[in-house]
Amino acid sequence: MQDDIVFYFDFASPYAYLAATRIDALAAAHGRRVRWKPVLITALCQATGAPLAPLVPLKWRYVQRDLERTAQAEGITLRLPPGFPRLLISPGRAMLWIERIHGQQRAAAFAASCLRAYFVDGFDIADARVLADIAAAQDVERVPLLAGMEEGVIKEAFKQANAQALQEGVFGVPFVIADGEPFWGFDHLGQLDAWLARAV
Amino acid sequence: MQDDIVFYFDFASPYAYLAATRIDALAAAHGRRVRWKPVLITALCQATGAPLAPLVPLKWRYVQRDLERTAQAEGITLRLPPGFPRLLISPGRAMLWIERIHGQQRAAAFAASCLRAYFVDGFDIADARVLADIAAAQDVERVPLLAGMEEGVIKEAFKQANAQALQEGVFGVPFVIADGEPFWGFDHLGQLDAWLARAV
Repeated sequence: MQDDIVFYFDFASPYAYLAATRIDALAAAHGRRVRWKPVLITALCQATGAPLAPLVPLKWRYVQRDLERTAQAEGITLRLPPGFPRLLISPGRAMLWIERIHGQQRAAAFAASCLRAYFVDGFDIADARVLADIAAAQDVERVPLLAGMEEGVIKEAFKQANAQALQEGVFGVPFVIADGEPFWGFDHLGQLDAWLARAV
Repeated sequence: MQDDIVFYFDFASPYAYLAATRIDALAAAHGRRVRWKPVLITALCQATGAPLAPLVPLKWRYVQRDLERTAQAEGITLRLPPGFPRLLISPGRAMLWIERIHGQQRAAAFAASCLRAYFVDGFDIADARVLADIAAAQDVERVPLLAGMEEGVIKEAFKQANAQALQEGVFGVPFVIADGEPFWGFDHLGQLDAWLARAV
């Protein structure tokens, strides 16, 4: 059994959402599984000194057009949600708690649902009650989740996750590491695919 | 006859070099011509506040790997030249002078030769004599070129070219604008191709 590939994403990133709709099937086609790891792009950018795309007006105008064009070309539904872009910390904490209690697979399914809820249906996934609704639909109990995601150990785990991602060389999202090989950006999933094909 | 597509590049950018090896053939396949426009990525980044990739160590490590992998996958020879990355102003000035005297087609051919000389053969294209050698191989006389690229009007034209690129929304290279539609990055040539196919 080969190692899982690691998929770094931020719940706030539309490009990460695009990649999230594809990554499991892409990996499965090569007999590989995916380990989903939430990070905060703001934390990564603070470390590298790169400004976030929405804060560079010229770039942001382009990115909006590129997102629309890319989603359309790929047949993926994407709507930039109300208030976008936002710093989203709660979904990552909720996911890490679910992972700790229910395992990575349930946590990844929760994350995929959150991204869909945010980028397709425009739900406010900063709201803990919305997160609890999404989790409840996947048989994760509300009350323990709402308490768990506020635990100091979970908050600390998310901080550690960002620090570890930086150590692995992750400076943006979506970012995939497969057998030590890094792939940055939705538009690099093709190269990942080719890499995994050779690695089989 | 449809409008030319505009190809913005920096002589110092390996991704621009990769795109330069493809852009004319890609456009020609759709009956389109390319207008090559040199810019200085440093000038664009100063305007947008984005740091250059080589100045963000975490990103730079990735970019080096990505360049190697991408060039290999695409079958393009690419060697990061001695002293890379450098600020390269002279080739842009030389190109603008050649364009003024000999036209855009000769200027684009000169630019393509410079990029190849730099990223394949490791020539120092900051050196005016090297530029004159490259130009001479294309029947551009040395002496007028060496004088012309130092003219105030040419220096000013290059500054204006950067300012105009920013106005067109160009914040990085390679950057292509086709019928007002912007495409940033070598990895977006596929989307450009699809766009031109629909635009025919």
